[in-house]
Amino acid sequence: MTERAVCVIGTGLIGGSLLRAADKAGREVWGTSGSAATAEQARADGFDVTTDTDAALRRAAESDALVVLAVPLTVVPEVLRRVDAAAPTCRLTDAVSVKVAVADAVARYAPRSRYVGGHPMAGTAESGWVAGRAGLFADAAWVVVADDGLDLEVWADVAELAWACGARVVPAAADEHDLAVARVSHLPHLLAAVLAAVGAAGEDDLPLALAASSFADGTRVAGTRPELVLAMCEGNRDALLAAVDDALGRLGAMRGALASTGGLAATVHAGHAGRQRWAASRNPDGMRVPRGRTSLSALRDIGRRGGAVVGWAG
Amino acid sequence: MTERAVCVIGTGLIGGSLLRAADKAGREVWGTSGSAATAEQARADGFDVTTDTDAALRRAAESDALVVLAVPLTVVPEVLRRVDAAAPTCRLTDAVSVKVAVADAVARYAPRSRYVGGHPMAGTAESGWVAGRAGLFADAAWVVVADDGLDLEVWADVAELAWACGARVVPAAADEHDLAVARVSHLPHLLAAVLAAVGAAGEDDLPLALAASSFADGTRVAGTRPELVLAMCEGNRDALLAAVDDALGRLGAMRGALASTGGLAATVHAGHAGRQRWAASRNPDGMRVPRGRTSLSALRDIGRRGGAVVGWAG
Repeated sequence: MTERAVCVIGTGLIGGSLLRAADKAGREVWGTSGSAATAEQARADGFDVTTDTDAALRRAAESDALVVLAVPLTVVPEVLRRVDAAAPTCRLTDAVSVKVAVADAVARYAPRSRYVGGHPMAGTAESGWVAGRAGLFADAAWVVVADDGLDLEVWADVAELAWACGARVVPAAADEHDLAVARVSHLPHLLAAVLAAVGAAGEDDLPLALAASSFADGTRVAGTRPELVLAMCEGNRDALLAAVDDALGRLGAMRGALASTGGLAATVHAGHAGRQRWAASRNPDGMRVPRGRTSLSALRDIGRRGGAVVGWAG
Repeated sequence: MTERAVCVIGTGLIGGSLLRAADKAGREVWGTSGSAATAEQARADGFDVTTDTDAALRRAAESDALVVLAVPLTVVPEVLRRVDAAAPTCRLTDAVSVKVAVADAVARYAPRSRYVGGHPMAGTAESGWVAGRAGLFADAAWVVVADDGLDLEVWADVAELAWACGARVVPAAADEHDLAVARVSHLPHLLAAVLAAVGAAGEDDLPLALAASSFADGTRVAGTRPELVLAMCEGNRDALLAAVDDALGRLGAMRGALASTGGLAATVHAGHAGRQRWAASRNPDGMRVPRGRTSLSALRDIGRRGGAVVGWAG
């Protein structure tokens, strides 16, 4: 099996970690940053990073590398225009946290590319090249979009990159991915923001002085750079509205119960059951499928059952 | 200064940790458990724990020990009746997470006791004697109620116990404490429950399979035993309603902005600012005050400014 070369566009937390992880796995890998200072820092750390995106993409076209877009959603159209100019038929994936919007942008700006969307589900409240590390994706879920019609060979390229980075592959339809992450990734950021604002709303400093681990954990992701949260959440608006409405409905029902009977049992028990179901899902069955011979529909079903693909069979 | 003996009623996570910490600090300490199995386990671990609460309280009365109620709020009236029978004028504090309700119960069931409320702000999602450890209160805030009219000598006893356990003392009025913990301790449990329920609400397992650290942290306290959460939150109903309404208002405004303009900037920036204000409050000024010569009003002001008392001056 060829160890395909990797070209990473964007070297923030995710792109920078991906570059380090692919390098550590023995891949030929290079990257680009929009910031000269970041590129210099990455080179000082021993990585092949420049600010010349067009040159990096031409090199990807020449060596049939896998191009990974690890830039914010707002920058994706601009980068896709460059892809279409410099490497129009390249193998292409991304690490953006919403998938329908990126697929739409690819169809519009780089329609000849062989695109298979990806989303490594890892991150910290920190950001930037210096926050990255090769181990960021270890044991993480890495969504690889399995919509009908895409190129199974590139699907295999993306899966192999995820495995090389230590992750497990969760196949999913793009729209089902967006609904799922609205519930388990974007809503947590908004509830953390609301909680942090309520805690800091008082006139005196007593509440924050009394904040302990439940507040610390519940607001942790409110420490993420606001631009990153906004790009992620606003790019997933429709799915996020559904998740917010679900949360509002549950919170409103709880408010009513607290005011009328004083009882919170329904809320607390449902939450406890949800957390336990989550805990039980932590060690999914790691499946192996034949390379290039499993249908996209069968792959999607693996993800819907909470499973993951960890390698090729046979 | 006398190292006052300590009698701990209830040896779950908090009481069991308190017993261990006071013992480690060289105090004479004994405790009681409602469970014979727990008492036996504690004795096997080398601690003086029985199921005979009346005998433990009589011993406290004889040795002028500080009695600490570390039982759920629902059990407090029953224990207070025993206090009134076996040690009616004892030095009394507690570790319950709401303070107005306990003060009301003391006034009703043990009115002769010399009561000063306390609330060590520490805990984990685990519970029970086996989850306890001497270091649980290290660097934690320990509220000691400073309402007008209480006994400054017992206030000093409770503060010295908190310091012996490694905590810093945050003086507060009972009602201001309850409003503060509703925002920073009880609301986090309810939002965690709502988030966990939304994450687990789908028909397939994809959302939980994609849940990463933002969901894990945001739902951590939903793993707490429901009885403990219910006792804590339902005992603070009025203050909690105000905190829930604040959260509902902010979440509803955010929903409106997301649906109309698609913008989440106000929510995300307010949350980020709140988290930063919390982070900046993490290392409060540790103050020293003269023993027994600082007014309760001055003590309360220290807590309102976000400060803490860490020892006696002079």
